[in-house]
Amino acid sequence: MTRKEQFAIGIDFGTESGRVMLVRLDSGEEAAWALVPYPSGVLDRHLPDGTPLGEDWALQDPCDYFVVLREGVPKVLRDAGVTPEQVVGIGIDFTSCTILPTLADGVPLCTLRQYASQPHAWVKLWKHHAAQPEAVRITRLGRERNEEIMRVYSGGYSSEWFFSKVLEIVDEAPEIYRAAERILEGADWIVWQMTGQERRNECCAGYKGMWIKGAGFPSKDFFRALDPRLENVVEQKLAAEYYPLGSCAGGLTAPIAAMTGLRPGTPVAVGNIDAHSGVPACGVVKPGAMAMIMGTSLCHMLMAEERRFVEGCAGVVQDGIVPGYWGYEAGQAAVGDIYAWFFRTFGVQPEEVTAKAAALKPGQSGLVALDWWNGNRSILMNADLTGLLVGATLSTQPEDIYRALIEATAFGTLTVIRAFEKEGVPIQQLVACGGLPEKSPLVMQIFADVTNRTIHLPRSLQASGLGAAMHGAVAAGAYQTIADAAAAMTGLQPRAYTPDPAAHAIYEKLYAEYLTLHDHFGRGANDVMQRLKGLKSAG
Amino acid sequence: MTRKEQFAIGIDFGTESGRVMLVRLDSGEEAAWALVPYPSGVLDRHLPDGTPLGEDWALQDPCDYFVVLREGVPKVLRDAGVTPEQVVGIGIDFTSCTILPTLADGVPLCTLRQYASQPHAWVKLWKHHAAQPEAVRITRLGRERNEEIMRVYSGGYSSEWFFSKVLEIVDEAPEIYRAAERILEGADWIVWQMTGQERRNECCAGYKGMWIKGAGFPSKDFFRALDPRLENVVEQKLAAEYYPLGSCAGGLTAPIAAMTGLRPGTPVAVGNIDAHSGVPACGVVKPGAMAMIMGTSLCHMLMAEERRFVEGCAGVVQDGIVPGYWGYEAGQAAVGDIYAWFFRTFGVQPEEVTAKAAALKPGQSGLVALDWWNGNRSILMNADLTGLLVGATLSTQPEDIYRALIEATAFGTLTVIRAFEKEGVPIQQLVACGGLPEKSPLVMQIFADVTNRTIHLPRSLQASGLGAAMHGAVAAGAYQTIADAAAAMTGLQPRAYTPDPAAHAIYEKLYAEYLTLHDHFGRGANDVMQRLKGLKSAG
Repeated sequence: MTRKEQFAIGIDFGTESGRVMLVRLDSGEEAAWALVPYPSGVLDRHLPDGTPLGEDWALQDPCDYFVVLREGVPKVLRDAGVTPEQVVGIGIDFTSCTILPTLADGVPLCTLRQYASQPHAWVKLWKHHAAQPEAVRITRLGRERNEEIMRVYSGGYSSEWFFSKVLEIVDEAPEIYRAAERILEGADWIVWQMTGQERRNECCAGYKGMWIKGAGFPSKDFFRALDPRLENVVEQKLAAEYYPLGSCAGGLTAPIAAMTGLRPGTPVAVGNIDAHSGVPACGVVKPGAMAMIMGTSLCHMLMAEERRFVEGCAGVVQDGIVPGYWGYEAGQAAVGDIYAWFFRTFGVQPEEVTAKAAALKPGQSGLVALDWWNGNRSILMNADLTGLLVGATLSTQPEDIYRALIEATAFGTLTVIRAFEKEGVPIQQLVACGGLPEKSPLVMQIFADVTNRTIHLPRSLQASGLGAAMHGAVAAGAYQTIADAAAAMTGLQPRAYTPDPAAHAIYEKLYAEYLTLHDHFGRGANDVMQRLKGLKSAG
Repeated sequence: MTRKEQFAIGIDFGTESGRVMLVRLDSGEEAAWALVPYPSGVLDRHLPDGTPLGEDWALQDPCDYFVVLREGVPKVLRDAGVTPEQVVGIGIDFTSCTILPTLADGVPLCTLRQYASQPHAWVKLWKHHAAQPEAVRITRLGRERNEEIMRVYSGGYSSEWFFSKVLEIVDEAPEIYRAAERILEGADWIVWQMTGQERRNECCAGYKGMWIKGAGFPSKDFFRALDPRLENVVEQKLAAEYYPLGSCAGGLTAPIAAMTGLRPGTPVAVGNIDAHSGVPACGVVKPGAMAMIMGTSLCHMLMAEERRFVEGCAGVVQDGIVPGYWGYEAGQAAVGDIYAWFFRTFGVQPEEVTAKAAALKPGQSGLVALDWWNGNRSILMNADLTGLLVGATLSTQPEDIYRALIEATAFGTLTVIRAFEKEGVPIQQLVACGGLPEKSPLVMQIFADVTNRTIHLPRSLQASGLGAAMHGAVAAGAYQTIADAAAAMTGLQPRAYTPDPAAHAIYEKLYAEYLTLHDHFGRGANDVMQRLKGLKSAG
């Protein structure tokens, strides 16, 4: 069989659904894809049995992941007319940090009758935000002890991350913690289910799980100081070894092969985070370029030869995106979400307002905004920051506000770029994927004008799934490195967004205003945002 | 004829229409009223002959004022079944500063064929804002020369006021300035037309026209320095004498009596400004209470025994509201206008959003705003300030924003109150009239909670017209003073808005946030608002 007749499968386990992609091994071209909604969706009000959930909770049902395999894989094979023998390998990517407690054999605690009504036994989705007090404790202790991992995470440990969620179980459901023989990422769990091998990936461990390549986890001392019951968490519930991206976790087990219609033994790559998986699919496999995964939020992903500690960087991990480089992740907590808020809250027609906003010149709205509708996840790392709009007059129109919101999100990205450049991590080229680049040419042009950089789009905007398939191909040995896979399987669209120098000149002035407001409200001169949140929750 | 069978007429010359009120002399009760729209409305795009007008222009046609007399007065007499003999006196109030150039006999220049196409020959309405450069020159010169009048006006002379508009004529239409034998307020002009007497009132002259009782106008030196052609403006085009409110300008002329159906010789009071006219109609005739005329904008009107220079006070004028006291005027450039902007811009249903906003507790919106959608006319006196909103999140709803806007306008009023109290001018009681108190109980309750003061409503919310009628009654000798007239002809409604102490306690905290933002953005720490306006107009 020639390479032209071969395929790889990438499965992207998202928030509301899973997406199965069947791509050609030689070109990366999509042969077929299938979207499979999770039957239980996001559990954020109550468990399937009616048990109510608290504010800020967000869970998933692990059985839903099997539905994606069972329905999605046969569908893409059927649609493309591809035989199991033509599929050389499989990769998956997953939301992160999404974790679950299981027995030693991988059985999720929530599937056991005695734990089914206990919320902490379920999969805690990345956007489960109830572990904020635990995140605060971890951050405080990590700083006090001057732990190296805190530098990796720029001084803050998120409520979304692994040990915040684990500590929340210890705090609120110690019986679940005791019963949990393993606690792991969804990405690693589904690979374990598919292969029978619990082979955890380096990426999740490095970006969310306090693991440093070559150094391991923080000491038992640290975990004991956090909570005595956590002292031996690493030995008892985690794993000793972590596997690099693109390595093979094992072959598909017979039951899963039967469920999916694939060959038993088909190589499966170790798990990966969705955003990280998308980077090589954008053709970004070395330093100098930054991939932007643009959707409801925005992930900035890039690489460098060296480790630098960059303000507001979510994490810097060796081999964390592409083996051989230090991988950097930064991000904005809300981008498309802010635009959606605007359209939804004011019931305006997106098409009409977008057309009017596109007709405005930079500066013409008279407005500047701070893009903190969902806090600030980059630079300031403060979830309690909120949105600000300045410059409104009696003539301000909806399109003025919409344009100011887009500009604010672009200023947020420019702030991230400048933070990297300040530490000697240059960013010459931008490649954007995700939902926004396709949907919003206006957004893309404003990002180009504000950052003064050309923004390229990859051929496939479904980058996470393609990246997963590429890792599957590498795990199968079809390509030696992910860079080789990228050279063959990815490419840029001919269209690109180039910056307009005149627009950029005005945006330099507006950005100076943004930055002054950013520092004033974000760095302690006026903590009004935090105080307003306090008043709100006190009411 | 007993007092019970007698009436007074008040005519309120507004922006879009005139309102004629026929009220009982003994009780102030409305017997009939008539609203007469101006046939030409506000001329803000072109003159009636098609001559285009510049940005920020707003003119009126003086012939429209006669339409109000001719149609409105006979209608109220007819509707109430009142004979001309029963009408003891007439008063008028007018928007201000609204001025026009005329010949020596009062004929408006714009009614002469040779000037009809010259915009500067027409009535410049109060909200004609094209004389901003002239206002800047006057303010600068007044400050340089340390003119006393600048202290009266808290250091700033508005583009809306008398000499800004006159200087604009000198600058742009010197032939009109030369042809103008008189330049005067609409209030004084209509009284002149009704009585044949050019008797100008003290109120307009003091608040808008640089006239100080006992001291007169600034020196010829001052006017020459402004423009040599203005050196003799006072002698040539203004008047030597000014008449106190409530004095009689003269009796109705035979032609106007014939036009209106009233008796020739019916006493007519000198003119008055609409906001000032409303104050005694609210029962506010002495120090300690503040009248708030609440509509698109908000006028704060009060009295004190002494002259104090209060930050941001638009003017302090001896006998300027009620003879015997110093009258103070302050104001907010936009209040109802901001709410209307919100409803209009986002197409939300006022009733629905108001109900939801009313259900929120103070602080629950998580938002604070600065109410500068139309600049700041009080305290900071800066038309280039703009609106600010802070605290937005992805859960922010339209009602949150609406409530924050109402609260911001109430904070603006509290800032005015505190500025007066700081200078030893106490304000114990608030009385609100105008359109908002009737329309918006939520607005009134929030103003009460924020200011921690009970807000009373007068029996008649059409305070300006009632006040005009009361001054007509005083001019006719039916009451000796306006306070006597107020005692008989006004009263408060039984319903009042009393502050909720719990709400006020939270508003104290929110007000502290407002004040910090107010000072930061209003007093030079960050002039972003002005710079954004600059960028906007440069575009």
